[in-house]
Amino acid sequence: MHVAIPLYPRFTALDAVGPYTVLAFTPGWSVTFVAAAPGPVTDDRGSLAMTATASFEDVPRPDVILVPGGPGTPAAMADEALLSWIRAAHEHTRWTTSVCSGSFVLGAAGVLTGRKATSHWGWADQLPAVGALHVKERVVVDGKIVTAAGVSAGIDMALTLLAEATDEETARIVQLAIEYDPLPPFGGADPHTAPAARREAALGLVS
Amino acid sequence: MHVAIPLYPRFTALDAVGPYTVLAFTPGWSVTFVAAAPGPVTDDRGSLAMTATASFEDVPRPDVILVPGGPGTPAAMADEALLSWIRAAHEHTRWTTSVCSGSFVLGAAGVLTGRKATSHWGWADQLPAVGALHVKERVVVDGKIVTAAGVSAGIDMALTLLAEATDEETARIVQLAIEYDPLPPFGGADPHTAPAARREAALGLVS
Repeated sequence: MHVAIPLYPRFTALDAVGPYTVLAFTPGWSVTFVAAAPGPVTDDRGSLAMTATASFEDVPRPDVILVPGGPGTPAAMADEALLSWIRAAHEHTRWTTSVCSGSFVLGAAGVLTGRKATSHWGWADQLPAVGALHVKERVVVDGKIVTAAGVSAGIDMALTLLAEATDEETARIVQLAIEYDPLPPFGGADPHTAPAARREAALGLVS
Repeated sequence: MHVAIPLYPRFTALDAVGPYTVLAFTPGWSVTFVAAAPGPVTDDRGSLAMTATASFEDVPRPDVILVPGGPGTPAAMADEALLSWIRAAHEHTRWTTSVCSGSFVLGAAGVLTGRKATSHWGWADQLPAVGALHVKERVVVDGKIVTAAGVSAGIDMALTLLAEATDEETARIVQLAIEYDPLPPFGGADPHTAPAARREAALGLVS
């Protein structure tokens, strides 16, 4: 299975690297980072550049596309080279996926019309603006479209995808390999029950 | 607070990018990826290159060092440029940290002697070989040394570190920003209760 992850300026690194690590660790799966042109692409913090090793033209028919989110999403939603690659690749993908605001990029490419999807809690309720139906879940599977909530949700999305594409045991093996037995020091972080001041402070960090 | 993450060939990307994302999202914190020389460094899958923007000499006194693990660890444990940078930086750090087999690199640099530490479940019991006392926890804090279990544990480690270095609310705000409300599709992945066949298959993926 060949996965292509498009990079664009100001993507959020963990959106890409969480699911990348899950899928690239899977036997028989490979991942290619793509962009308009090969070369380094800088993330949203300005402190991490990851290298796209192929152009969009080089990878026209990946089995899976996985679009990360980040503060660069609004610009990505107007990037016709990226959108037309997604649109054309999606016709042949086995799975079309996103993390965080990456679902808005999928939506801008026109592939979410009438489909169930999710995104970061801060703006997931705006998904109808790109034609999608917002479902308040961490990972949403609608046919071959699989979308994740914010940033770290990409890890859970990739494990879900992996189980759908292979089997539960394969997903569990990879999960054990990356020791994903999460134990956040103060418990979970449910955005729907978090205090308003914390929500506001958190949104300030991701906008 | 200035964090330096050394990259070396065949590091595991999520080891670095999980805690990077937590710490780089924190107001007032910045992260620099360092290596023997600036430039791209390729990960353990051979499919992701991340750019070190500074050399070891450029960043002699970071507040925090965070050493990722990966299949490249044995070579890193014999890399004198890396080890001597860790040794010298550690004298002045506020925190010295690692993820996964990165604790063995810290050990090879001589900074874990008699200290409590952890690592990936596959080889954490070998920590005494580098002078450390193995503690079977996901995140181990011993004074200014903070070590994490395998790969994804770096996210929990970074949140723990952040709470220690600032306060609990700051860590919770960042956690909410990256929507770290983990929900692995099949529950946790406790290596100590996993079936032997799954353990063996998982170890095959990370060795």
